[in-house]
Formats: sequence, structure tokens, C-alpha cells
Amino acid sequence: MSVKTVGVIGSGQLGRMMAIAGAPLDVEFVFFDEALSSPSSSFGPTIQPSSKDALASFLDKVDVVTYESENTDAELVEKIATSTPVYPSVKSLRFSQHRLTEKTLFNELGIQTAKFERVASEADLDQAIETLGLPLILKTTTMGYDGKGQALVKTLDDAKTAWNSLKGNELIAESFVTFSRELSIIAVRSTNGDIKIYPLAENDHSNGILRVSRVPAQDVSTEKQEQAERFISTLLSELDHIGVLTLELFDTETGLVANEMAPRVHNSGHWSIEGAYSSQFDNHVRAITGMPLGDTSTAHPHCAMVNIIGKFGDRDLVLSTKGAYLHMYNKTERQNRKIGHINIIAESEGEREQLIQKFEAFIKECG
Amino acid sequence: MSVKTVGVIGSGQLGRMMAIAGAPLDVEFVFFDEALSSPSSSFGPTIQPSSKDALASFLDKVDVVTYESENTDAELVEKIATSTPVYPSVKSLRFSQHRLTEKTLFNELGIQTAKFERVASEADLDQAIETLGLPLILKTTTMGYDGKGQALVKTLDDAKTAWNSLKGNELIAESFVTFSRELSIIAVRSTNGDIKIYPLAENDHSNGILRVSRVPAQDVSTEKQEQAERFISTLLSELDHIGVLTLELFDTETGLVANEMAPRVHNSGHWSIEGAYSSQFDNHVRAITGMPLGDTSTAHPHCAMVNIIGKFGDRDLVLSTKGAYLHMYNKTERQNRKIGHINIIAESEGEREQLIQKFEAFIKECG
Repeated sequence: MSVKTVGVIGSGQLGRMMAIAGAPLDVEFVFFDEALSSPSSSFGPTIQPSSKDALASFLDKVDVVTYESENTDAELVEKIATSTPVYPSVKSLRFSQHRLTEKTLFNELGIQTAKFERVASEADLDQAIETLGLPLILKTTTMGYDGKGQALVKTLDDAKTAWNSLKGNELIAESFVTFSRELSIIAVRSTNGDIKIYPLAENDHSNGILRVSRVPAQDVSTEKQEQAERFISTLLSELDHIGVLTLELFDTETGLVANEMAPRVHNSGHWSIEGAYSSQFDNHVRAITGMPLGDTSTAHPHCAMVNIIGKFGDRDLVLSTKGAYLHMYNKTERQNRKIGHINIIAESEGEREQLIQKFEAFIKECG
Repeated sequence: MSVKTVGVIGSGQLGRMMAIAGAPLDVEFVFFDEALSSPSSSFGPTIQPSSKDALASFLDKVDVVTYESENTDAELVEKIATSTPVYPSVKSLRFSQHRLTEKTLFNELGIQTAKFERVASEADLDQAIETLGLPLILKTTTMGYDGKGQALVKTLDDAKTAWNSLKGNELIAESFVTFSRELSIIAVRSTNGDIKIYPLAENDHSNGILRVSRVPAQDVSTEKQEQAERFISTLLSELDHIGVLTLELFDTETGLVANEMAPRVHNSGHWSIEGAYSSQFDNHVRAITGMPLGDTSTAHPHCAMVNIIGKFGDRDLVLSTKGAYLHMYNKTERQNRKIGHINIIAESEGEREQLIQKFEAFIKECG
């Protein structure tokens, strides 16, 4: 007897992992996506948006709606919200979709970001170079993911190339942040305003794609963890956010600098499936269905996540390793595609690093 | 891209938990059952045995078949096995379905059981009373579950009543075993003969229904764990068993006494979902699909499982307790029905007992 039925806009691996986490709570799922054969399609019916009376048929089946991507159509979300609760709300979604308003909000809330300028013309770009100095990063204000839709500008020549490649889009120029590492903080807020926060994750990227997350991040001072928690709590409350929210951060000499947020479960939180008492997927489902939140602390002293990208790799190596967990997404191999991940739990930092090392081929050879 | 598709005969909570465990391994599921709305029905298509070309249609979709119950039709399993691998094989199934041949096998393999006699007539029963003494237990040789199909015989009058209630069935009389507690040992064997064994579980029953399992069992000597491991390994190899096998045991002054086996994942192994490195469901799926087995040791020092029987109970109490995990089966409330369970992980035995105590209402008030 299902407690609630959750509608998910999208049917990728995030919806899949929400459905797997929701099952033991008697929560059922319906997906709204064109793809009928998808990572989520084994876990509930899929309604194709192109089908007759699609939206009415979708909403008829569900008690609450959520989404997988910050690129979800905000107008669709607004339309749904007139009849069915959508969590996180369109407010969180719209801020996440626009780098300029997002960074402006961060600064208003006392969350440090890179310095930035709006760029609507080549003259604006020249002015931004003047104000921010070089190098800077020119980005589209909307869309862009895993390093797409942005260009690093080191010289005036680069500026011309970047402008020619990105012009026609609304743009933002951001000063280059010198950081020692990338971190992320993930938290969840329930319908009654309770907040639970996961420990900071330390994230290794390559070619703009996340490869490895470690939790807890190495050598994090109490101040740094508290600063990150203050940032995300402030955002959750300001946005009246319900569900999981992720904030990507740079660790710099002047403290934590916010890069961007995602109004959803996040790749850098996948470790939590085995690593935390309650995973980000479990907590997202609890939050949006009005259940009490679960504990977000680590259930094992050291955790990690290694992405499986492009190629399946040596599955049996993962399956035969104690403390390693295979999570595949029912996807085919394709370059740069996230097709699964490996979770790692360990008693010590050394053991964790040994396990990450063991799966080096997944990190180096995939692509 | 599914690695393999598993067909399950049945669509109850065991199939449900296999499907949830199989998902991260890219294993998909199809269920063979009349019930279209069942604990498993959200996790793959259901083929109704009464539908046209049902079996062909089911087998066409699957690479390997397994089953949820020792009461599965053995002739169906034999028929399927002519075209599609079925694990565990019909040999394990037939022995599990017949108390007389099962106990005979146990004794042949050096596994201690209660003394027993076949009872085909009232005269046989009188003879059994002579040989075994009173009290004894009169049971049907086939079927019977959770205390059904059996009668305790303390007096000659009881014998008459028991005979009248059970006659018409093939019967077995078993001597009464005086035991201090009930234990179970669960193990898994892969297609290449590898065996992995979970720690002994200690099981509390009430009205013949399992209420609480604790792992590891309290005060188990190395000899006792080894004896149980020897029993189950011998059985797995003798039966050429593939998948999970459970052996229920009585702890007595003369050592472990085998009660019965089940050729499947078992209620007393549900703790392993969060409690073990690799759960019984994960390992069953790995075994029958030819994957390497996972580690069966506990991932937390002390684990337990509390059944949710008959009534939903205070769900929020479970969800708000650190170290407690709610597992519902998408079933409605009904007396004596297993509708879910609570898993517990704890750092100490004291903490485990406190958590079990916290969920006392689930144990006492359900029914």
C-alpha cells in the first residue's frame, strides 16, 4: 500500500536511485520523460510528454512532483505547482538556472563568490577584463554542465575567441579563483523546516567531469565545515527549499568560495547510499513526502565514490572487493557518459585510499 | 543495459527485496504470479500463470529463474529446467518440501536432528510414542509454515486429537527437542562452487512467527559457529545448491540440532540489508547470475531485525531513529501478515538492545 506516489520529471540515474531508496518506505514512482527505456524505467510507469493528455495523466497518478535536473523547464514546474506540490519549488530552480542571479543571491546572503560582471556585448567583456583582470572565465548565464558553455580567457586573443564562440547567449564573466580543491556540501530540508547536513565532500574532476568524491574531505577544520553549513542553511531557508540542495565550493586562502548550487541530489553525494546512515536519495524522498529526515552522518569512518564513465570496466573487481559497492545505471557505454559508480566504505583513510587506488583504471581509462 | 534478467516464481516481499538488491547490478526482474498488485509489482513486469502462453512468455523474457518459496510447484521447476536454468535446483526444493526425506538427508550427512518416525496410521503413531516418548510433535511431511500443519502431543488424549486433525496427510512424528534458543545459519553458493556464510542469527518467535533476529547471536562459541558452518557447507555441496540456503537450528545441550532448511533467502537474514557488507538478497542475485559473491561479514558490530506484523505501527518513530531502517513491503494491514521489518545497526550490544526495546510496540502489539 503505497504511502505516496512521487512524480519525477526525467528518468535518469537520479530518478532511478530515488526510486530504489523510496521503495522500502512504500513510496512509488512515476516518470515524465520521452525515453521509455531509461535508467528509471524498471521502477515505475513512464508518461511520455508527447503523448495525449500527458501532463494530466502524469499528475493524476502522483501526490508530489520532483525533478532530476536544474535544466528542468521552469514554466512546466510553475504550471504543475498550480495543482500539485512540486519540491524543490520553482524559486530554487530559477536561481539555479541563472548564474548571474544565483551569484547575486549568494553575495546578498553573505556567501563569498568569485567576482563577476554581466557581459552583453564585446565592450562589456573588455570592461570585465579591466575590472576583474585576467585570467577570467566567460560563461553562459544559463545552461552549461560538466564544463560545457564556458571558456577560460587568459589573453586578449582568448577573449576574442571566447566571445565569438559564446556570443548570442547572455554571458557572465567571472574572475579566476585560485583554489586548492573543490568541495561540495549537500543538505536536505523537510516540509516542516528541519534541516540535516552531510559532511563536506572533496571532489576530484578531470575534463570537467567528477571522477572521485571523498567524505569526509581531508583535513577540514571545524570552521570550514561550519562555514559550509552556514552557507547551505542560509540558502535552504531563504529559498524555502524542500528536498536536497547541493552547493559546490572552492577551498581558497580566503575561505570557501561558492561556485554554484544544484536544487537536487548530486553526484558528489552518491557515496551516501552505503556511507551515511540515511542517503541523499532516502532523505530527498522523505523530505518531499513529509516524512521525518534521516541522520546524515557517516555510518563508516571514511567513504568515497568513484564514477564509472564511458566504459563498464572490470565489474568483477568491484564485486569481489570488501567495502566496495557497484551501482550501475542500466545505461550503455558511451564516451564521457556517467554509466555507474563505485561506493567505498573504509575504517581508515589509508584503507580508503588503497581502495580508490585499486579502482584506478575506472578513473584513468574511462572517458 | 541489463546484465541478466531474473525470473521469479512468486511476487512477494522476497522477490521485491531481490529486485531492489539486483538493480544496482543492472539485473532486471520478471515475476510469475497471479497477483498483479503485489510487493514486487513495481520492479518489473508480472506474467500471470493463467494468461495465454504464460510460461513461454515468462521464459522468453528471462535468463535464469529462481523462486520465493519452498512451496513452489516442483513439477513446474522441473519443466522450466529443461530449457532455462533454475537456481536453486529442484533437488534442493524437493528435499525442503518433505520433512521425512529432509531429516533423513540431514542424518546421512551427520547433521543432528530430533529423532523421528514416519506415521502412516494410528498404529504407527502409537509405535512412535513408544519409541520417541512424550511429548512429541506430529507434523505433516509436506507444506506447513509458521506453525501450521502440526500438533504438540503431550498425552495419549492429545495423540487422538492430533491424529484426527492431521490424518489423511503423510505424517512425521518428531521427538520434542529441549532447546535454549532458536538459531539460523544462512549461506550462499555460486555457480563455480564458492561458498560464503553469514554469522549465526538468534531468532525470537511468538505464536510460531519470527519477531526478532539478532546478529551475531549472543554468546556463540567458535565451536558452535563452526558446527553450523560445517552443517550448511555440507548441505550446499551435497545438494549442488546455487543461491542462498537457510538452515534453522535449535541450540541444545548436545549441540546444534537442525530443524529444517529453506532453499531461499530467509526472514532471519533480512538484517543483512544494512547489517552485512553484502546482503542475502545481493548475494542470491550474484550467485544465480554468475557474479562473484560478496562479503557476508557484518559491516556493523551488532545488528538486528524486528518484524512488522499485522499493523503498520509508528513509522515515524523508526524513521527518526539513527541506526534504524524501515523496510515496508507495499502490503495492507492484516492479522499475522508480515508487512515490513525494521533493521537495526549498532556499535554495541547494549545499544542494539536499547533500539530493539524502543520498537517493543512493534513486537508486542502487532499480531
